[in-house]
Amino acid sequence: MIPKATPKPRSIDLSNRARMLVSCPDQPGIVAAVSRFLYEHGANIVQSDQYTMDPEGGLFFIRIEFDLEGLNERRDRLKADFALVAEQFSMKWSITRASRKKRLAIFVSKEDHALLELLWHWQSGDLDAEIAMVISNHNNMRELVEPLGIPYHYIPVTADTKAEAECRQLELVSGQVDVVILARYMQIISPKFIEHFPNRIINIHHSFLPAFVGGKPYAQAYNRGVKIIGATAHYVTEELDGGPIIEQDVQRVSHRDNVDDLKRIGRHIERTVLARAVAWYVEDRVIVHGNKTVVFS
Amino acid sequence: MIPKATPKPRSIDLSNRARMLVSCPDQPGIVAAVSRFLYEHGANIVQSDQYTMDPEGGLFFIRIEFDLEGLNERRDRLKADFALVAEQFSMKWSITRASRKKRLAIFVSKEDHALLELLWHWQSGDLDAEIAMVISNHNNMRELVEPLGIPYHYIPVTADTKAEAECRQLELVSGQVDVVILARYMQIISPKFIEHFPNRIINIHHSFLPAFVGGKPYAQAYNRGVKIIGATAHYVTEELDGGPIIEQDVQRVSHRDNVDDLKRIGRHIERTVLARAVAWYVEDRVIVHGNKTVVFS
Amino acid sequence: MIPKATPKPRSIDLSNRARMLVSCPDQPGIVAAVSRFLYEHGANIVQSDQYTMDPEGGLFFIRIEFDLEGLNERRDRLKADFALVAEQFSMKWSITRASRKKRLAIFVSKEDHALLELLWHWQSGDLDAEIAMVISNHNNMRELVEPLGIPYHYIPVTADTKAEAECRQLELVSGQVDVVILARYMQIISPKFIEHFPNRIINIHHSFLPAFVGGKPYAQAYNRGVKIIGATAHYVTEELDGGPIIEQDVQRVSHRDNVDDLKRIGRHIERTVLARAVAWYVEDRVIVHGNKTVVFS
Amino acid sequence: MIPKATPKPRSIDLSNRARMLVSCPDQPGIVAAVSRFLYEHGANIVQSDQYTMDPEGGLFFIRIEFDLEGLNERRDRLKADFALVAEQFSMKWSITRASRKKRLAIFVSKEDHALLELLWHWQSGDLDAEIAMVISNHNNMRELVEPLGIPYHYIPVTADTKAEAECRQLELVSGQVDVVILARYMQIISPKFIEHFPNRIINIHHSFLPAFVGGKPYAQAYNRGVKIIGATAHYVTEELDGGPIIEQDVQRVSHRDNVDDLKRIGRHIERTVLARAVAWYVEDRVIVHGNKTVVFS
Repeated sequence: MIPKATPKPRSIDLSNRARMLVSCPDQPGIVAAVSRFLYEHGANIVQSDQYTMDPEGGLFFIRIEFDLEGLNERRDRLKADFALVAEQFSMKWSITRASRKKRLAIFVSKEDHALLELLWHWQSGDLDAEIAMVISNHNNMRELVEPLGIPYHYIPVTADTKAEAECRQLELVSGQVDVVILARYMQIISPKFIEHFPNRIINIHHSFLPAFVGGKPYAQAYNRGVKIIGATAHYVTEELDGGPIIEQDVQRVSHRDNVDDLKRIGRHIERTVLARAVAWYVEDRVIVHGNKTVVFS
Repeated sequence: MIPKATPKPRSIDLSNRARMLVSCPDQPGIVAAVSRFLYEHGANIVQSDQYTMDPEGGLFFIRIEFDLEGLNERRDRLKADFALVAEQFSMKWSITRASRKKRLAIFVSKEDHALLELLWHWQSGDLDAEIAMVISNHNNMRELVEPLGIPYHYIPVTADTKAEAECRQLELVSGQVDVVILARYMQIISPKFIEHFPNRIINIHHSFLPAFVGGKPYAQAYNRGVKIIGATAHYVTEELDGGPIIEQDVQRVSHRDNVDDLKRIGRHIERTVLARAVAWYVEDRVIVHGNKTVVFS
Repeated sequence: MIPKATPKPRSIDLSNRARMLVSCPDQPGIVAAVSRFLYEHGANIVQSDQYTMDPEGGLFFIRIEFDLEGLNERRDRLKADFALVAEQFSMKWSITRASRKKRLAIFVSKEDHALLELLWHWQSGDLDAEIAMVISNHNNMRELVEPLGIPYHYIPVTADTKAEAECRQLELVSGQVDVVILARYMQIISPKFIEHFPNRIINIHHSFLPAFVGGKPYAQAYNRGVKIIGATAHYVTEELDGGPIIEQDVQRVSHRDNVDDLKRIGRHIERTVLARAVAWYVEDRVIVHGNKTVVFS
Repeated sequence: MIPKATPKPRSIDLSNRARMLVSCPDQPGIVAAVSRFLYEHGANIVQSDQYTMDPEGGLFFIRIEFDLEGLNERRDRLKADFALVAEQFSMKWSITRASRKKRLAIFVSKEDHALLELLWHWQSGDLDAEIAMVISNHNNMRELVEPLGIPYHYIPVTADTKAEAECRQLELVSGQVDVVILARYMQIISPKFIEHFPNRIINIHHSFLPAFVGGKPYAQAYNRGVKIIGATAHYVTEELDGGPIIEQDVQRVSHRDNVDDLKRIGRHIERTVLARAVAWYVEDRVIVHGNKTVVFS
């Protein structure tokens, strides 16, 4: 992979493209207010997705992509102006520039398939983000990562050094990345770490949650004799494997598949599901509410 | 099925629910104009889906579901008012009431699975339409259809009587139904008939179009040795099996499956795909442009 | 459905077709012994599937379909002869005639989709079995079942009458049917009843087991925010929703789907999965070992 | 990928494992004769799959995996002995050792995803083969391939040099490899080259064949407005995209996906399908008859 350390450039110009995410209690006039605001500021809506959880008294969610000439210079003003609209409707909201790449830290242990997949999407230009660093409790993927110009931090973890290791991790990532991706990182993340990245740590769990929570899910699946296995990408919360689900996928298996086969088949599902979830995060397509997600994919 | 001739009632009240479909050349301000219009008329947007084919100089599509108090009385005025907005943006548009059930004519030949599926969805309340009549070139499904209170018209078709038969069909359906569903109706529809129902005849073709156009697609699929078979619901145009595709689905097969097996497996795909396409039509989710569809599903 | 009370006849002659199921500890020579036995008795193997759980010291499973001229007259002798081979290898085994239709009792409550699906497969000739009776704790499907010539037994169940009701059910089915199909029968089956039909009661559970065991699985799935829902056909054992899984399938859902939508989507998965499991049972394709199944589909 | 140039070792010992593939006209006694032969030679059947195309007068196919102590020394004798059985039944047959890795030549052009996928499966030990060489009409993947210890041959192709280039290719692969994998190699293979590798060239075509044969299939798919796209792995014959299909898979798309999106989604299907087909070839799971395949997967 060495020769292509720089990902392919985007094929279309996104320098004036912005993405707005809004959630708020539903009431009449929200779309009208937002779209009028954008129109009056000269923006052109390129795509919009909207979802109302319950027409009467429920929650309202919208994602809008718009183009605005001179976005970079005008965005501070745009945000200040929109704050007034947002206040009126009690909105949680964000406006991000599509050209401002999200910064990722990828955590990985011994299995390389999830990391490799992300690197492949990144190099091919499909994952429009910046991989700020890879952190691992093993050293064996350094030579895979560093030639791509990505810093690789080897932080071994033992029962004794766990707290200290996490401190080093936090130092590295705090303020440096938008999101932490656990690409088959086989250590439990502490509540303290999670607090620093609320709904900004994405894990890939190797089962179809909520089935087979915890360790050795493929062995659990084999013993239960399921005919389909799956993987789940979710945000990490304090409850183990209990956070908001972003994406899941599955594949059919049969009695012929032993635990090793399930692991092999599962690796394919895991890397696919994680890559999809990360791409959606990166493109501002995921809104968390309660313990669930709205995904405008 | 006799005891349940009347489909289950809807669980939520849709009497004030309307659906707006719009397509037009893209330009800034469309969403703002439409949503402002709705807001000023007191409507609450429940769901909206938008798609712009190409940000610069492309086509714009939107589907909006909204609730409006007193819809039934106010809809004529609403439409008259919206015509002014529409003119400004060169829109093709429609506003329909969710409570006004689409009227379907189902055409069927000897195989009953596609018809049975539609009847089942209708009885369970999932297909929110009125089945105005069933027309068949065979008489063998009369006793299945009439007990449900649905008129059954037996119109035999031979090479000699084809033109005359179609005249009778047209008499029955003209002005009486919104759409004609070919639920495995094994006669070619004439251009003259199609002219009366432009993009309002839905056919289920028993292959994954454009593969295996024409007759005996399962035999064709068997001979080609494909590993996956499919079915395609599409609008009928003059070009045989060439009209806009609404929905497709597939299923895996193997060398073990002979032509009869493919037919059996295929029946399941056919009924599923057709039911989905009909439901989307009925819920105003399909917009045709050129020879393609936008489906806001 | 009335006019077609008799299912379509089979298209190929199965009067001399037999199916052999064998499971035993693995050792060299099993296939040789079995196939030599069949050859020497003049049988022609039409299909065979074999699976060895672990080459060394594991379990061996085989399913063989064979044709034997004059099967009906010769089967007793064939079985007596095969008992000697079977003893040598400590086999559990069965030899059944394909022309001897399995007899099913279908239990159903208020929801009709699973029953309708089985009736449809039966009428179209795809489900090659005899539906000996339908038993329900409600009376509302009588007019759907009786015109097909299938006895319908209405046995209401309340907390007080549960034991008595089950006695009546047992009287009806004991010795009369091969298998009991719970086609969305919403009552718990007692251990005593299960004892009479060990691994011969097939239930459709409306979740992707082992996720969402117990009641209201779609509400559970909605609350957990899963992106895929499923259904599971399994043999009933004393452990609730814990018996050997025969078949599972799934479908993608999104945040837009509320609990009613999940139920609607789920009905489609349920009927598909149950029909597949019942067909496999009927064609002697399922072998149970421990709490798992080998399915030679 | 540098540090892991040697694939992971197999987890189970296959040194005495053999695979037998047989196809012949069906008649009674084939399985008996083969299994008796194996038993008398001391082999233990680990897995067997059989398929008869038509019970009366059709074709018979079987794949048997067996363990035989001292396979390596005894295989010549075993083959000589089996030739007698084979002659009796007019069999086409092969017996291969599982431990003798198939040798692959991978042809690739500019797109790297199919090659990367094969390398990943190879490095992880899932693709149990030897990658003897990579041949490309471009030089840009050299630094990706050579560090893995795999020879990389850059053979540019222009209209003028095509014949000469193919000669060089043939020199490199003749007698050196078992199979040629076209991993998105965008040059037409000449009939002369194909003659040297009958049913031993595997191509990945980027459509769901037979839909969209020839060039630019994603553009074709976009223009036709299909709702599902696919990829097809097939053996190369003289008829363009017309050879026996080994494997296919598909993925759902929507009106939102432009041609670039289809290409991106398609890359994922292509690499998956090709990897599966190559694995099946490598494990002797594919038998060609006429223009179709039997795949014992």
